[in-house]
Amino acid sequence: MERKSDATRAAIVETALALASQEGLEALSLGPLADAMKMSKSGVFTRFGSRSTLQMAVLQNYHGQFQRRVLQPALAARKGLPRLRALFSSSLAHIGEPRLAGCFYISCAAEYDDRPGPLRHELTSGVLAWRALFEQSVAQAVELGQLAASADTGQMVFEIYGLLLAVQHDMRLLERSGSVSQAQQAFEQLLLRHLADGA
Amino acid sequence: MERKSDATRAAIVETALALASQEGLEALSLGPLADAMKMSKSGVFTRFGSRSTLQMAVLQNYHGQFQRRVLQPALAARKGLPRLRALFSSSLAHIGEPRLAGCFYISCAAEYDDRPGPLRHELTSGVLAWRALFEQSVAQAVELGQLAASADTGQMVFEIYGLLLAVQHDMRLLERSGSVSQAQQAFEQLLLRHLADGA
Repeated sequence: MERKSDATRAAIVETALALASQEGLEALSLGPLADAMKMSKSGVFTRFGSRSTLQMAVLQNYHGQFQRRVLQPALAARKGLPRLRALFSSSLAHIGEPRLAGCFYISCAAEYDDRPGPLRHELTSGVLAWRALFEQSVAQAVELGQLAASADTGQMVFEIYGLLLAVQHDMRLLERSGSVSQAQQAFEQLLLRHLADGA
Repeated sequence: MERKSDATRAAIVETALALASQEGLEALSLGPLADAMKMSKSGVFTRFGSRSTLQMAVLQNYHGQFQRRVLQPALAARKGLPRLRALFSSSLAHIGEPRLAGCFYISCAAEYDDRPGPLRHELTSGVLAWRALFEQSVAQAVELGQLAASADTGQMVFEIYGLLLAVQHDMRLLERSGSVSQAQQAFEQLLLRHLADGA
């Protein structure tokens, strides 16, 4: 019984994430979610107790997915430039994955940038973990002598993140599939400008 | 009476834009809007007839504001590089304007990228007009011999737009005010790489 209830709860969260990816996490409401689950609204409600608990569970579920899809493939690569390239590549693949609605962190950003509270805090912690791995990878590439000592980590990661935001924007709103290769080209150019002499 | 009614309608649209900038255009609902206007809900409703007519009026009002704040200052500058710099600068100033909640086109992008229909079309037309002025300015800078003939207009504008998206994201979600100067630095570096020889 415990098991079945856990499985149902997990299935609700998965479905809620799929709905929230399309409609927004703030737009998530129990009625359409219950319909999608073929459950009663109160059946969904009793498992979470409040909409905000469900929203938090959705974000935490996404942290796990993001970890597996984006961060772990990068951590499996060698430190420094190979990891930086792997992280950019897994990030791009995640944003462009046709079965998903883009990166959920990116699509939630505009929803929560004016809404203080625990959900915003949870969202920000996910974004910062992603950014931190970019920063660490750049810093390690400098330490290993692959990137020039003059490379400004914060500046480079700001520019890299801008490319990822532009891919999600252009692919999804403007339906420009060429944005992935534009981002790859800009990323490689950025690395080239910061390569250590003789690297 | 006609005049007063027009003024009321305009005031409703202004207030609705301010609310939608914070909460999202899809989250716009007549109740809170009527409260903010100190009007009855039906008083708001009769002036628009439907929520979607009001949402469309909000987007169209924003087109006008965007035109005045962002596009016109650029069009007042000389063609080519001065206009490209003026457009980047007015875009940045608009995104960072403390009395506004960032650029409304950017904050609406994630809301509408999964929602086909007239509002998405209207939003996209605004974004494309902005992008077109960037593209035209780069192309004119090439024609005028200020940027190298090898400069790839689409690629440059993709990268520039990414910087603007990153500023809105980092300033608003991550509360990093340094993102404006990071974007300026990246923009000047981008121009520098594409300057025509001897320009």
